[in-house]
Amino acid sequence: MERPRHQGMAKNTYMRWRLPLVCLLWEVAMIVLFGVFVRFGAEADAHWEEEKREMNLTSDIENDFYFRYPSFQDVHVMIFVGFGFLMTFLKRYGFGAVGFNFLLAAFGIQWALLMQGWFHSFKNGKILIGVENLINADFCVGSVCIAFGAILGKTSPIQLLVMTLFQVTLFSVNEYILLNLLHVKDAGGSMTIHTFGAYFGLTVTRVLYRPNLEQSKDKQGSVYHSDLFAMIGTLYLWMYWPSFNSAISDHGDAQHRSAINTYCSLAACVLTTMAFSSMLQKKGKLDMVHIQNATLAGGVAVGTSAEMMLTPYGSLIVGSISGIVSTVGYVYFTPFLESRLHIQDTCGIHNLHAMPGLIGGIVGAITAAAATEDVYGKEGFIKAFDFTGAYQTRTPSIQGGFQAAGIVVSLLMAFAGGAIVGGILKLPVWGDAAAENCFEDDVYWEVPEDEESDVYHMHNPDKPASP
Amino acid sequence: MERPRHQGMAKNTYMRWRLPLVCLLWEVAMIVLFGVFVRFGAEADAHWEEEKREMNLTSDIENDFYFRYPSFQDVHVMIFVGFGFLMTFLKRYGFGAVGFNFLLAAFGIQWALLMQGWFHSFKNGKILIGVENLINADFCVGSVCIAFGAILGKTSPIQLLVMTLFQVTLFSVNEYILLNLLHVKDAGGSMTIHTFGAYFGLTVTRVLYRPNLEQSKDKQGSVYHSDLFAMIGTLYLWMYWPSFNSAISDHGDAQHRSAINTYCSLAACVLTTMAFSSMLQKKGKLDMVHIQNATLAGGVAVGTSAEMMLTPYGSLIVGSISGIVSTVGYVYFTPFLESRLHIQDTCGIHNLHAMPGLIGGIVGAITAAAATEDVYGKEGFIKAFDFTGAYQTRTPSIQGGFQAAGIVVSLLMAFAGGAIVGGILKLPVWGDAAAENCFEDDVYWEVPEDEESDVYHMHNPDKPASP
Amino acid sequence: MERPRHQGMAKNTYMRWRLPLVCLLWEVAMIVLFGVFVRFGAEADAHWEEEKREMNLTSDIENDFYFRYPSFQDVHVMIFVGFGFLMTFLKRYGFGAVGFNFLLAAFGIQWALLMQGWFHSFKNGKILIGVENLINADFCVGSVCIAFGAILGKTSPIQLLVMTLFQVTLFSVNEYILLNLLHVKDAGGSMTIHTFGAYFGLTVTRVLYRPNLEQSKDKQGSVYHSDLFAMIGTLYLWMYWPSFNSAISDHGDAQHRSAINTYCSLAACVLTTMAFSSMLQKKGKLDMVHIQNATLAGGVAVGTSAEMMLTPYGSLIVGSISGIVSTVGYVYFTPFLESRLHIQDTCGIHNLHAMPGLIGGIVGAITAAAATEDVYGKEGFIKAFDFTGAYQTRTPSIQGGFQAAGIVVSLLMAFAGGAIVGGILKLPVWGDAAAENCFEDDVYWEVPEDEESDVYHMHNPDKPASP
Repeated sequence: MERPRHQGMAKNTYMRWRLPLVCLLWEVAMIVLFGVFVRFGAEADAHWEEEKREMNLTSDIENDFYFRYPSFQDVHVMIFVGFGFLMTFLKRYGFGAVGFNFLLAAFGIQWALLMQGWFHSFKNGKILIGVENLINADFCVGSVCIAFGAILGKTSPIQLLVMTLFQVTLFSVNEYILLNLLHVKDAGGSMTIHTFGAYFGLTVTRVLYRPNLEQSKDKQGSVYHSDLFAMIGTLYLWMYWPSFNSAISDHGDAQHRSAINTYCSLAACVLTTMAFSSMLQKKGKLDMVHIQNATLAGGVAVGTSAEMMLTPYGSLIVGSISGIVSTVGYVYFTPFLESRLHIQDTCGIHNLHAMPGLIGGIVGAITAAAATEDVYGKEGFIKAFDFTGAYQTRTPSIQGGFQAAGIVVSLLMAFAGGAIVGGILKLPVWGDAAAENCFEDDVYWEVPEDEESDVYHMHNPDKPASP
Repeated sequence: MERPRHQGMAKNTYMRWRLPLVCLLWEVAMIVLFGVFVRFGAEADAHWEEEKREMNLTSDIENDFYFRYPSFQDVHVMIFVGFGFLMTFLKRYGFGAVGFNFLLAAFGIQWALLMQGWFHSFKNGKILIGVENLINADFCVGSVCIAFGAILGKTSPIQLLVMTLFQVTLFSVNEYILLNLLHVKDAGGSMTIHTFGAYFGLTVTRVLYRPNLEQSKDKQGSVYHSDLFAMIGTLYLWMYWPSFNSAISDHGDAQHRSAINTYCSLAACVLTTMAFSSMLQKKGKLDMVHIQNATLAGGVAVGTSAEMMLTPYGSLIVGSISGIVSTVGYVYFTPFLESRLHIQDTCGIHNLHAMPGLIGGIVGAITAAAATEDVYGKEGFIKAFDFTGAYQTRTPSIQGGFQAAGIVVSLLMAFAGGAIVGGILKLPVWGDAAAENCFEDDVYWEVPEDEESDVYHMHNPDKPASP
Repeated sequence: MERPRHQGMAKNTYMRWRLPLVCLLWEVAMIVLFGVFVRFGAEADAHWEEEKREMNLTSDIENDFYFRYPSFQDVHVMIFVGFGFLMTFLKRYGFGAVGFNFLLAAFGIQWALLMQGWFHSFKNGKILIGVENLINADFCVGSVCIAFGAILGKTSPIQLLVMTLFQVTLFSVNEYILLNLLHVKDAGGSMTIHTFGAYFGLTVTRVLYRPNLEQSKDKQGSVYHSDLFAMIGTLYLWMYWPSFNSAISDHGDAQHRSAINTYCSLAACVLTTMAFSSMLQKKGKLDMVHIQNATLAGGVAVGTSAEMMLTPYGSLIVGSISGIVSTVGYVYFTPFLESRLHIQDTCGIHNLHAMPGLIGGIVGAITAAAATEDVYGKEGFIKAFDFTGAYQTRTPSIQGGFQAAGIVVSLLMAFAGGAIVGGILKLPVWGDAAAENCFEDDVYWEVPEDEESDVYHMHNPDKPASP
């Protein structure tokens, strides 16, 4: 019942030796590097009892685990179920969406623990990890999931693993420049995760431009139930975004505030998305693409400023604007990017992550520049921006300038990195599919026969669907 | 491939200007009101460091965020995924179920923050919000989601937004009367959320009675996979209900106890639901409608008493009874309500929320009336019922009386409010669909063509399904 | 539109009186036993205020609720959504998978609260419960869900309830022997939950061997969307497994460490699973069965050792190996077990739970035997293995020996218990379906007509599908 394919002629998508080789090679490398470098941090080590005494902690509840673990789990759900299911909207690429996302994220978090560990948790030759490292690794991989959205359905799993390796590396470098060298605040990652991840992915997909992609156009749409699967992803991203933006903020008021700001921004974003989705369509009907994606822009756009004193109404404004920008993007920008700039952006990450990420960076810069001791309190002001040590004399307006610089650096890293990695992925050795087989699980997955015959049957009513 | 419709003749469901207008108008109103009124509470404000010192708190872990945030996220999932997916059981109304639930809840939580804030968190002209406000806003919107269940598939998104505006307002007034004037305990909202929400929705659907609804009868059923989508909603409501009932209880034992009571009640409820589902069907087969809904009645029915010393076996009894009542309701009451009382209750909220909500209110009144210092301990007794200040002299039996009064007030508010709001929604300006187009996503949503042709094809086997 | 069935001839699957009877009888028994035995533990009782003073606790945050409730909810999701949806992969058994799992788990947790309570929380004639008991009850039921995987689609709901009753009982006895008599550590339950549950289930399915099962072979596969539903189960199990393994560990570093070890093991497991899934298939395509199941083996295999100083790289190694073993198992062992040993293992629990469970027990024994005061610190060493009181003089190598003994005991209990319970389930009174009606929801569930006609239509293209 296998229908004839042209893939054999044009492209070799046979994964049998290449994929296992890459997976196993990299896992062995991870084991060796973890063996050499990674150990438990003080709060996860069995020496904790002594540590507790030294730090004068009276209760186990002071362990960072209890401050951050619930948020970590929410972020974990966002990365694996959120991003994974959000991308199942394609009618014949559900396995690839959720399965490849699973693969690249599982590899990425290991590599991210190392890369970020070398930069941020390196002591006496060892990387000491705790729950905050797990969250940061998930965050880092989040930027890869975003980039995956641009090339969804057009790349082989090996290409995704290669991209993950490089993107995690570049992410960590960029993050180090922003957080440590520029001393920028970006707890929810508007710049480090969304701006960087999205423009990186857009550059990669530009380099991998496929002129004949309309050959698989019939598979680029959704079916009724695939749209419902995608809504699972949307809602988990939407609901847990307050945890995302607050997960690594300072203990206490900062985590609390981040969650509230994000909650408000996202609520507002839903209303403006619905409004513009209906308004921009001739028949006034709502479009699931917008509801699935643009409703999330509010979370992206308060990523940098959520832990600042953005205030609830400030969050509503940011959320409202980003919902509008994102929906307009889906209607007008995505077709423009594809036809004029040859950027084929499967999931529309330009609308959901790139533009809202930029808004988030700018809002963060403004909010930082507008900070006063009056609003934050004397101690709160210093704590919120870490104006201690070498940064004791930094003023809000200077901080705002550095925040803005962070956007520029992230963009440059994304363009340069994306161009190089795109070039590597263009090599004809990675087993990507021919244009007419894009957005089709059958290329890399065992697909149940029944269903295939069903779909086949739908498109060929004159032929009987034998099981 | 658009099949001819009669909607154009009978009703104007064109949303293009009306829906955007309402959404944007209301979001602007929210921004203005938030700007004037809403600020961060002490535990989310950057002045927290000073606050901590004043309150003699030694650790950030004492911030209410860490007591309630995990429960908040569970409640959040219940409102958006729980209610949203529970209602996707209809074969052709999945987008509307999950999408409109998303829309009304996102608007509702903003308006609830204001309404509840004015009543409960108003200080020096400002509403000071923290994580408890977010939970309460979600709770309030929960009552709207319940009412939505009664009118699912029969109303336009604008009607839902109008209903949300009014229902949130009335909810907050009713809640204020119960909690502040009657000094009633209702942490899990058997009265404020379920009884009020359900009878409000039932009154609205009564006013909106559609005599010709059998014209869309073929769309009122489920398909195999839509029933599985609905089970996602069911399970998340079921699993997280312990968080729902304990989310705003007092710190410590009260939260702990609420979770245990709810866990027990829900477990028992599943068994009696299964028993009666099989028993009441001629062939003895289980009915997904019961499994999806009646299994949750146990959570509703311990809403008021979960934080009291109901005890685990008390919870099992309440859960068992409510599972039976709810399942019997689906088999006998729902058809009766429709044919005799003209109450068309799409999701059967009368069985899942109204009757169990009443049970919950009554159980709460009895449990309160039966409280003794022996069972609660001297301090625990006072703490559990807040018998301090003006209520210092209140006895358990008087408290029981007030609890009962709370049920009556909630019912009256629901009937009166539902009648008025139903009348408003009956105005012919809101764009609801004609009877033959009810339960059909195609009216308000862009629906993928393939799937539509597929379903079309199923029903018309003699016509080929061209893509 | 009911198609003719042979079930009536061969087997009586009529549930109308039997299922309700069993459910109600058992729920009544639960109510009576709970009434006699179960009360709130000190931290959930209204006397907590006094308790707090006695225990010198200064804050409500010291209540065990705040240490464990987030993990409890994650475990709860694993049991009901995780296991429930993982088993929805069958094309026509989604209702049974998620619905019967719901039923048996809801009953099982009640019985487990009693059984485990008598063994572990019995004071002055009462079982005193708190959040840790809820977690343990969920754990215990987890072992039943595992066994359910082996017999999925081949048993009646009554059989499942009978099995649950016996398996929970045996689980509790086995757990008592291991934890209390052998003083074995097994926080994540590699031995008590996975090894015991899986070999118990495999023995049961061996006893229930159906020689004619190939008659329902066409229903043993998946369809496209049922595989996506199953991925929901997979991902929730995968994401929340760190909570599973850390839920009942000691407060502080042990919970923290368990989560990190599990996170690492699972990440590695995904890569080796993908590698071997592709490598062992002629066309090199990935198989959803492996992705859905073998990716989880890493969580099983660190169940015992996660709270020990396994270290992150140790976890990567264990995860890598278990992914390989599990995938190889699906490709080679499952067919072998079925054809040679007559073990019909619907979900392949031998690969996901049995073998990785054994690995977990062995790794735990080795890790315990290798423990030193140097690695754990003097206090940490004693705390990690509870080397206090009667066990003050136990050495790591002796502990390792006892750990190994725990594996053997679990296996013996599983084989003996499974044989007896399998024998009971073989009695011809429980209403199981004939071989040709296995893996078919229609036997025990009301199934929506439309969909049935749809599927029917797919298989019989020459017959029109009338609605």
